[in-house]
Amino acid sequence: MFEFEITSNCSNTGARTGIFHTPNGQVSTPKFMPVGTLATVKGISSKQLTSTGSEMILSNTFHLHLQPGEKLVKESGGIHKFMNWPKPILTDSGGYQVFSLAKLNNISDEGVEFKNPRDGNHVFLSPEKVIQIQMDLGSDVAMAFDHCPPHTANENDIEDSLQRTHSWLQKCVETHKKSNQALFGIVQGGKYPRLREFSAKYTSSFDLPGIAVGGVSVGEAVEEIHNVINYVPKFLPINKPRYLMGIGSLREISLAVANGFDIFDCVLPTRLGRHGTAFFNDERLNLRNARFKNDFSPIDKTCKCETCKSYSRAYLHHLIRNDEILGLSLISLHNIAHLIRFTNAISTAIRDNCFTNDFAPWKTSSIAHHTW
Amino acid sequence: MFEFEITSNCSNTGARTGIFHTPNGQVSTPKFMPVGTLATVKGISSKQLTSTGSEMILSNTFHLHLQPGEKLVKESGGIHKFMNWPKPILTDSGGYQVFSLAKLNNISDEGVEFKNPRDGNHVFLSPEKVIQIQMDLGSDVAMAFDHCPPHTANENDIEDSLQRTHSWLQKCVETHKKSNQALFGIVQGGKYPRLREFSAKYTSSFDLPGIAVGGVSVGEAVEEIHNVINYVPKFLPINKPRYLMGIGSLREISLAVANGFDIFDCVLPTRLGRHGTAFFNDERLNLRNARFKNDFSPIDKTCKCETCKSYSRAYLHHLIRNDEILGLSLISLHNIAHLIRFTNAISTAIRDNCFTNDFAPWKTSSIAHHTW
Repeated sequence: MFEFEITSNCSNTGARTGIFHTPNGQVSTPKFMPVGTLATVKGISSKQLTSTGSEMILSNTFHLHLQPGEKLVKESGGIHKFMNWPKPILTDSGGYQVFSLAKLNNISDEGVEFKNPRDGNHVFLSPEKVIQIQMDLGSDVAMAFDHCPPHTANENDIEDSLQRTHSWLQKCVETHKKSNQALFGIVQGGKYPRLREFSAKYTSSFDLPGIAVGGVSVGEAVEEIHNVINYVPKFLPINKPRYLMGIGSLREISLAVANGFDIFDCVLPTRLGRHGTAFFNDERLNLRNARFKNDFSPIDKTCKCETCKSYSRAYLHHLIRNDEILGLSLISLHNIAHLIRFTNAISTAIRDNCFTNDFAPWKTSSIAHHTW
Repeated sequence: MFEFEITSNCSNTGARTGIFHTPNGQVSTPKFMPVGTLATVKGISSKQLTSTGSEMILSNTFHLHLQPGEKLVKESGGIHKFMNWPKPILTDSGGYQVFSLAKLNNISDEGVEFKNPRDGNHVFLSPEKVIQIQMDLGSDVAMAFDHCPPHTANENDIEDSLQRTHSWLQKCVETHKKSNQALFGIVQGGKYPRLREFSAKYTSSFDLPGIAVGGVSVGEAVEEIHNVINYVPKFLPINKPRYLMGIGSLREISLAVANGFDIFDCVLPTRLGRHGTAFFNDERLNLRNARFKNDFSPIDKTCKCETCKSYSRAYLHHLIRNDEILGLSLISLHNIAHLIRFTNAISTAIRDNCFTNDFAPWKTSSIAHHTW
């Protein structure tokens, strides 16, 4: 279980295609994971989500612990049954959310105490508790609890938090006892190569079924994201799925795949979708804009998603302008399908030896145009 | 075109089954029509709507005239193409909406001037204009423009408004020139049998392809609704589809079918769905209620809709409690499927000679239980 088969290697870059096996089916990589924070990919039914080609999706320990609570999800038969997603599910540990969304009360080596943003009550999360929650949720992949300092923290603070992340990883590994759930460690270290290298080596030493790189796309400059993408993979095990957390822009996915990353997640497809913004090639179309009022073409006439097969930009403009929730759902659906399509095209291109780290297969001049 | 075939008659009541032929397919009656006010059944894609068994849906002249405007809909290829609903569409005339939603400025025999609720601009609707709008929209069935006074109006005022409704019907008939669109007249007359009889006979005299009864369920007591349902049909042509406007409660649909009505519409399935209320038999379940938190059964285990096949009450409770829009969509979807199922069960029961005007096929004691 949790075998990762590398099925092909790129001749031009460090990219590879693979199959990650989980108890609820396989994930062909590289692959984008839609985000279903509260056990729902916002506005999209599981039937619709299936139609986008999505395989593994992400849900959030932090949110599900607060609402409806992991015990209820467990009682329902686990997160797959609860949200009707019978394919693989990865749960984020809540580390990132605790530090970005909650009002912190106290951070110690034992864990984090914070105020529940919903009701102001005190909540305590520790590595042990976060693992217990994820075992109750029953996801295919659980993430270790990590300390995510702000990207503006200095090297000393990042190093302190990294020590904590590492000691928490040790505790997570000791606590995690669930043979049908994989535990992934998370590499931190901010923008400091020394710390990233140390963290990558330390995290790799646990020989877990997969490894993630976190603390990227947390507000820092794009060059710093690129530096991490370029630098960290050389310290990661080759034969494990590598998950770059929180990245969903096409440019960075390409670059990351070229450096040997396999799995990605990002809230942007649904967050932008809810604001009426649709992905088209590497552009973002604000469908609220008056120029779409009379545009009777689909968002992308080459896209095979339900939205593009059925609805025009003019209709979506009409829905969004009138705050009709169908508009949010349909645009989110397309945006997810677009990212799945992009990572699927990358897979084909790797196998066909035409993948490049500036992958843009929609261009008719691209040697990988046939993959689009 | 617009033939109405009566395919069976009930041996116990005035109910009948039929097939109403339109340019975009047939409607088997009795049938409930979901409401898609702004060219969208709120929160539900056309693919999902198809899965409920919906055939004809209703959209609103008043709303579409204000946004996005009938010219844009026409330019897009008509309302079917605009909203991706290739099956029959009926457009309400806007009469009811003008009098219930807008701040009126002036009512005359020529038409109604009102303030656009969106921007405060003055808008004028006349019978001629309302027909022109509906011809531009390209619905299968257009409704005549009618004057809907409040149900508290006295007999004199109702009679005055009825004269206007009748003169407007004449103008609508003269204006309507579209062979692939049927025009239905609307019987008014409030709670006054004399006026209802007069209106039914007058409206019937135009020999249009269908006839509607309006001005019901506008705030009056349920007995008054029943009186209209019981009284008016005897003055309507037998061989035309009869549409009872704005009625979606099971009790009243049963009674109306027993009196020979064929088509119904109501905003309740989607409006209640958006508030977290789900139909179950003849009950309304408020899924926000704490008692559903741990209820892992579907809304209705005998229902075959996407929501009931895929999701539990506990999950829907979770979604609604967290303002997740998927919850609104899924409950609305079920509610529509429930009403379609109800009218389909009525059809089967009529053919099987087990329809009664207190039709409740979910009861195991019902002689029509097999139709559920």
